[in-house]
Amino acid sequence: MEREKYMEAALKLARRAQNEGEVPVGCVVVCAGEIVGRGWNRREQKQNALEHAEMMALDEACRTLGRWRLADCRLFVTLEPCPMCAGAILNARVGEVCYGASDPDYGACGGVINLFEEAFRHKPRLYGGILAQQCADLLTDFFRQLREKESAADKPL
Amino acid sequence: MEREKYMEAALKLARRAQNEGEVPVGCVVVCAGEIVGRGWNRREQKQNALEHAEMMALDEACRTLGRWRLADCRLFVTLEPCPMCAGAILNARVGEVCYGASDPDYGACGGVINLFEEAFRHKPRLYGGILAQQCADLLTDFFRQLREKESAADKPL
Repeated sequence: MEREKYMEAALKLARRAQNEGEVPVGCVVVCAGEIVGRGWNRREQKQNALEHAEMMALDEACRTLGRWRLADCRLFVTLEPCPMCAGAILNARVGEVCYGASDPDYGACGGVINLFEEAFRHKPRLYGGILAQQCADLLTDFFRQLREKESAADKPL
Repeated sequence: MEREKYMEAALKLARRAQNEGEVPVGCVVVCAGEIVGRGWNRREQKQNALEHAEMMALDEACRTLGRWRLADCRLFVTLEPCPMCAGAILNARVGEVCYGASDPDYGACGGVINLFEEAFRHKPRLYGGILAQQCADLLTDFFRQLREKESAADKPL
C-alpha cells in the first residue's frame, strides 16, 4: 500500500500535466519517506525534448539533496520510463523504480528493451504495474479527447 | 573535414570541463551550419546526474530554436553517448550523431548497447571515431592526473 501512496502523488502530477495540455505523466522521487523531487511532462509548453516528468523530478531531487548519487531514493512514475529517463535513473544510481502503466512503444524497462538488465554499472529494483489501470486510463482518456478535438477541427463548417 | 571542424569545437568545450575539474566531455549541436547548442560535463560542480555535455547542448539547442524536434540538427560529442544522452537524442529526433572516443563501459551507441538499432521510432545517422585519438587522450590524461593526485594525497607525510 505504501507504493500506491506515492503513485497517487505521481498521478496528481500527471493530472497537472493534463491540465496544462500535456501528455499526462507524473513522477515523484522519495528519500527516507519524504518526497524530494516532483515532475510532470512539460515537453510541449517548454518545446524541449528533455522535459519529461522523471527528468524534472530527478533534477529537483539532486538539488534538494545537494548530491547526484540517489542510491537511497525511490522513483515513482505513472508511465514506464523511456530510454532517456531510464538512463538518467542509472546515472543517478536510483535505488528503486516503480512505474504504473507499461509502454510497449517506447518503454526502456521491459516495454521495448530493459536498460536495467544490460551490462551497466547499476541495477535498480524494478516494480511495474503500480495503480496501472488509473495511470493507463489517464493516458487513454487524454489521447481520446485529443482525437475528438482533432476530428471536430477537421469537420467542414 | 567538416565533421572534424565541429568536433574541434566540442573538444574546446571538453577542455573547459577539464579546467573546471570535471571529466572532460564536450558537445555541440549544429543546425544549418551554425552551432545552436553548447555543452560540457558539469556533474560534480552541479552535483547533478543529469548534467552531461549532450543534455546541456540539447537543452540550449531547443531553447535557441524554440522547438523540441531537432531532425535537421547534428550533434557532435567527444565521447560516445551514455543511455540517457542517446535516449535524449532519440526524443529530440536529432538527425545525425558524431562522436569521438568509444565508451566500452557505458556507451549506448555500440559500446555496451546500441539504442539506435532498437525498435524505437527514430534512427539517427551515426558516425563514431571522429578525432578519436584527441578525444580519448584528453580523457586518459585526466584520469592519469586524478590517480597521481590521489596517490600523492595517500602518501604519509
